Amino acid sequence: MLSKSQISLLNSLQQKKFRREHGLFIVEGYKSIIEFADSGYHIHTIYHTADAASKLLNLSRKINFHEISLTELGKISALKTPADALATVKMPDNDVIDSSSLKNKFSLVLDGVQDPGNMGTIIRTADWFGITDIICSEDTVDVYNPKVVQATMGSLARVNISYTDLKKFIIYAGLPVFGTLLNGDNIYTTQFGGEGLVILGNEGNGIRPDIQELITKAITIPRVGKAESLNVAIAAAICCSQLAAKTFK
Amino acid sequence: MLSKSQISLLNSLQQKKFRREHGLFIVEGYKSIIEFADSGYHIHTIYHTADAASKLLNLSRKINFHEISLTELGKISALKTPADALATVKMPDNDVIDSSSLKNKFSLVLDGVQDPGNMGTIIRTADWFGITDIICSEDTVDVYNPKVVQATMGSLARVNISYTDLKKFIIYAGLPVFGTLLNGDNIYTTQFGGEGLVILGNEGNGIRPDIQELITKAITIPRVGKAESLNVAIAAAICCSQLAAKTFK
Repeated sequence: MLSKSQISLLNSLQQKKFRREHGLFIVEGYKSIIEFADSGYHIHTIYHTADAASKLLNLSRKINFHEISLTELGKISALKTPADALATVKMPDNDVIDSSSLKNKFSLVLDGVQDPGNMGTIIRTADWFGITDIICSEDTVDVYNPKVVQATMGSLARVNISYTDLKKFIIYAGLPVFGTLLNGDNIYTTQFGGEGLVILGNEGNGIRPDIQELITKAITIPRVGKAESLNVAIAAAICCSQLAAKTFK
Repeated sequence: MLSKSQISLLNSLQQKKFRREHGLFIVEGYKSIIEFADSGYHIHTIYHTADAASKLLNLSRKINFHEISLTELGKISALKTPADALATVKMPDNDVIDSSSLKNKFSLVLDGVQDPGNMGTIIRTADWFGITDIICSEDTVDVYNPKVVQATMGSLARVNISYTDLKKFIIYAGLPVFGTLLNGDNIYTTQFGGEGLVILGNEGNGIRPDIQELITKAITIPRVGKAESLNVAIAAAICCSQLAAKTFK
């Protein structure tokens, strides 16, 4: 049984303010929970149904396990259809990103991405293509938002996300800076070299002007048809795909 | 002022059953409405705020215009934040697709895509890359679902969508059949030729076995990192991008 105060605490974690206050975020579904545990995240408590118990046997006994009914899971879940398990996970410290760790690889930079689904999909796609770091402006949607965590399908456990003052970060990093703009080089013929930052902008407004100024090579996904724009997660995927493509040719 | 029965009718159009019954679907936002009008769709009625009136001046006077308050718009909108205008648009007949019209180009085939956001994003991406036809299995999410229409950002007005028995259609079309499977050819080195169907499957289950059997060239987006899978809209975008890429090299 869950007490009213437990339910209230768990529901509060759907809000950024309380996630920061408690240093916890929510992960739902046993598969994702195991991926977080395997990636070294500290799992605080797992609330699970009797059915899910057998799937969680290999996890550390240091974790608090709490068997509850599916009805109770429904009360603490952020999903329309609650999964079989919900964990509270300790948020990692948002350390200042060490830009020297970004040499000889490509990283994504998100300038104000707002939609949780887009953010989650970008993380999942980055993980598929082996991109390990995503650096976000302070006003990018919170990665520990339950909708973002859900949309990453466990990939958040493997991709480092940091929030910082993008302008200072980009200048300090001293890496090639690629950005998707309307009048850039054709992405299919762009020479990306061996390292760099790839900037993607806000859904409605794109990349902010003061961040655009820092782009050393503007790139464009050529339009064949008539859509006014591409979704930002789609644009990110096509960038990741083109970065990967060169290693397969 | 909207009557209760008008509100009730408009709300019913959020359900497939009533859309079929009335032969109408809903488009929200003046930009999208204009795109549908420009593409030859028959707009039945536009409900708009006083502010939006000036943006709709160029539309045919055969349309019924109905000025309402933003509060009233909220009552008939499927959006969390209603736009400035909402139109009822006549659904085109779902004619049997003429497969001879698909020669010398690439079309997408969706086998059971369920998520409205994915469906809408696939249509928007197809429109960007100049793909004009998407053929869907009968159980693919209804394209006139307001969430799909919204996610297409107006692109639904320019892409032909048809629902059919996929197996019969694919056999009858006699075109090269590409499908994203786990053990296919590397998409970055695949020779696509000049025409074909590209099949994408359901979010959880992929392409059905009896449709997989019809694939003449299986393709794979190589995985560099560790994500278990890619979102279907992302996979579709990478396929479209690779088809476009060859024309830019």
